[in-house]
Amino acid sequence: MTDKQPLIARLDASTADFSARLDALLAWDSVSDAGVAEVVDEILQAVKTRGDAALVEYTNRLDRREVSSLADLIVPESKLHEALESLPAEQRQALEVAAERIRRYHEHQRQPSWDYTEEDGTRLGQKVTPMARVGLYVPGGKASYPSSVLMNAIPAKVAGVAELVMVVPAPGGELNAMVLAAAAVAGVDKVVTVGGAQAVAALAYGTESLPKVDKIVGPGNIYVATAKRAVFGMVDIDMIAGPSEILVICDGQTDPDWIAMDLFSQAEHDEQAQSILVSPDAAFLDRVEAAMERLLPTLSREAIARTSLANRGALILVQDMDQALAVSNRIAPEHLELSVADPDALLPKVAHAGAIFMGRYTPEALGDYCAGPNHVLPTSGTARFSSPLGVYDFQKRSSIIHCSAEGASELAKTASVLARGEALEAHARSAEYRIKV
Amino acid sequence: MTDKQPLIARLDASTADFSARLDALLAWDSVSDAGVAEVVDEILQAVKTRGDAALVEYTNRLDRREVSSLADLIVPESKLHEALESLPAEQRQALEVAAERIRRYHEHQRQPSWDYTEEDGTRLGQKVTPMARVGLYVPGGKASYPSSVLMNAIPAKVAGVAELVMVVPAPGGELNAMVLAAAAVAGVDKVVTVGGAQAVAALAYGTESLPKVDKIVGPGNIYVATAKRAVFGMVDIDMIAGPSEILVICDGQTDPDWIAMDLFSQAEHDEQAQSILVSPDAAFLDRVEAAMERLLPTLSREAIARTSLANRGALILVQDMDQALAVSNRIAPEHLELSVADPDALLPKVAHAGAIFMGRYTPEALGDYCAGPNHVLPTSGTARFSSPLGVYDFQKRSSIIHCSAEGASELAKTASVLARGEALEAHARSAEYRIKV
Repeated sequence: MTDKQPLIARLDASTADFSARLDALLAWDSVSDAGVAEVVDEILQAVKTRGDAALVEYTNRLDRREVSSLADLIVPESKLHEALESLPAEQRQALEVAAERIRRYHEHQRQPSWDYTEEDGTRLGQKVTPMARVGLYVPGGKASYPSSVLMNAIPAKVAGVAELVMVVPAPGGELNAMVLAAAAVAGVDKVVTVGGAQAVAALAYGTESLPKVDKIVGPGNIYVATAKRAVFGMVDIDMIAGPSEILVICDGQTDPDWIAMDLFSQAEHDEQAQSILVSPDAAFLDRVEAAMERLLPTLSREAIARTSLANRGALILVQDMDQALAVSNRIAPEHLELSVADPDALLPKVAHAGAIFMGRYTPEALGDYCAGPNHVLPTSGTARFSSPLGVYDFQKRSSIIHCSAEGASELAKTASVLARGEALEAHARSAEYRIKV
Repeated sequence: MTDKQPLIARLDASTADFSARLDALLAWDSVSDAGVAEVVDEILQAVKTRGDAALVEYTNRLDRREVSSLADLIVPESKLHEALESLPAEQRQALEVAAERIRRYHEHQRQPSWDYTEEDGTRLGQKVTPMARVGLYVPGGKASYPSSVLMNAIPAKVAGVAELVMVVPAPGGELNAMVLAAAAVAGVDKVVTVGGAQAVAALAYGTESLPKVDKIVGPGNIYVATAKRAVFGMVDIDMIAGPSEILVICDGQTDPDWIAMDLFSQAEHDEQAQSILVSPDAAFLDRVEAAMERLLPTLSREAIARTSLANRGALILVQDMDQALAVSNRIAPEHLELSVADPDALLPKVAHAGAIFMGRYTPEALGDYCAGPNHVLPTSGTARFSSPLGVYDFQKRSSIIHCSAEGASELAKTASVLARGEALEAHARSAEYRIKV
């Protein structure tokens, strides 16, 4: 068995081919498919032009429903509370504790309006207001996650969004009780059991029964992602997420079983998920690999995790912590776990990461559910320019400019020179009318 | 001459057909063109695979240049300062005054990192950092505006972006001295005379000589916009702007010549620009129309303004200020001028607007150049969900989670229940390892 496929790749950051091997490991083909785009375009057009009727038709056909009108697809608010009541006490309490912690954290993100007044009485500032209406897409079936409802809905409600509409497909009429309960806990205003591109179309264009929204957030399959891309510009959307990833930097002093399980918690998501461990301690990498060999067969999602680790996982040996951070900054990971004695010493050197899990007692799983920060994070290196989903994603700003007569007279002189320099005469003359003579 | 085409449409918000007429007025076809997309794809691929060589070839061909290497396309820093020195004193001073005011305003937008510590020692927060490298697209030729350089570059530098790369095509080798001078004043780090889709490709993918950036901002023609859309996701981009618009709400007491010129300052931009005046005073609308008839022939850009007003302008009669605001909120205008005695009384009712110009002494032109706030604003109703370009567009956030051993033990109990509820066993077990026994 000398040719046995290793459980996970081993890389050494000091070798000449490291850079090329890392590139190959990170490479990931974002899905884009002409056939899907054609189907999605047809659905978007149908819902745009025929509204409720098209939405009902597609839902009956694609989700095996038999409803006669859109009203039948709207979940009464009482059902959400019934779902919450129906949960085992332990689950209900866990949802409520998580929601409360997520709410408390996100309240720190709410941005206030501000202004300042200059000596001549001119006032400048920004007025910050919530979006009026937001749509939240929630996948149906097996990938239907209550934690995702909390993480997407709560920041919107903390921002002050007046109407939060959740769409979730109910294949064969079935809905996940924990998802409905999470909607109740998070304060979702309306739940409609539609999904796919037709749900995105309804949110973006509005129908007779459903108002159009200003922004659509939440994960979905390739049809949903393609539809979101297509309506982007008419409404705002969140980032289209790639596969989830974790990068653990460990000094070699954390229990190898803990690190193995932290890596598994990413790898069990799906075959494309990426789990990477970086350490300066080669013997520790051996111990973690041994722990992985031993623990992997005990996982209920062993097959998925095994494929993910074989295809996209890596144990990377580095010379020291500076090299570990260089590797991490190059990857700009979605989740970065600093499983070391003094994570604060490393933090200033972290240039890009979606979320940073500090110390041996902060596994990613705590952040996924209930620590407070959002679990919707930039993937595939986009932490270079993107942020966790937050309250700021549901607020918008208007500039405020209020010139005093005196202030306007001075500003107009500068504006006039620049406008004439750009050959925009009406701009210049509009300004010049305000110059005191 | 009874069939004479009116200079500008007249609408009455109280008539039955108002809503339909307003929709027709606002309708605007965003450009998307399969032929353009094909050309752009070819250019993107060429620059991605052949780097500098492709960039030089396209630039020689499309911009009528005759350079032999990419080095010839880089503008030495000394040239920028020479351009600034070469300007008439009045222009140089105007640029410097505007830049200083823009900088001072945008410094109010810089967002600090924050955190808080819970009773059990768990620390939560967000680390806010600037993007490392940003590309600024500046159109060449006649639409080359120094004010646009200031408005795009200064927020990036205030955010702390380390390397700001400006690309600007130089057709036939010619560059606008004021644009170069603005780059010097704004602190642009590098200027490269390339443009079009090839410039966007170089910024997004990098070449042998040019590093890839994290975000691309700035206006451009349809090739540039199409290329930006295509690379979005790999790098961040700003919004693709539609035609510029102004909505003026006036109580009838501002000098009609001032209002006419304020409307012209929008209409002179291009034939698609939109200028709308809303007032409860019908006689005032007549006076403004008369002023427009009289002043329009005196404009250097009369033809453009006339077409814009005829196609997309409107004078709208409303019953009162509440109806005026309802019309404005429905449009969600890029620029909203509240030319009234007490604009502060109206401000709380403004739901959506890119920038709000308060009172009779605050024409849009002051904001376009030097008041301080940004002139890159959400167009075509996107103020419902977008904000002015700002420092926040060049910052990104990382969540910070640092659990104490005690805090982790408590959180893990909640995380475990939720993870098992989602059938993610490795998540649960990763959390459970941290429960104190």
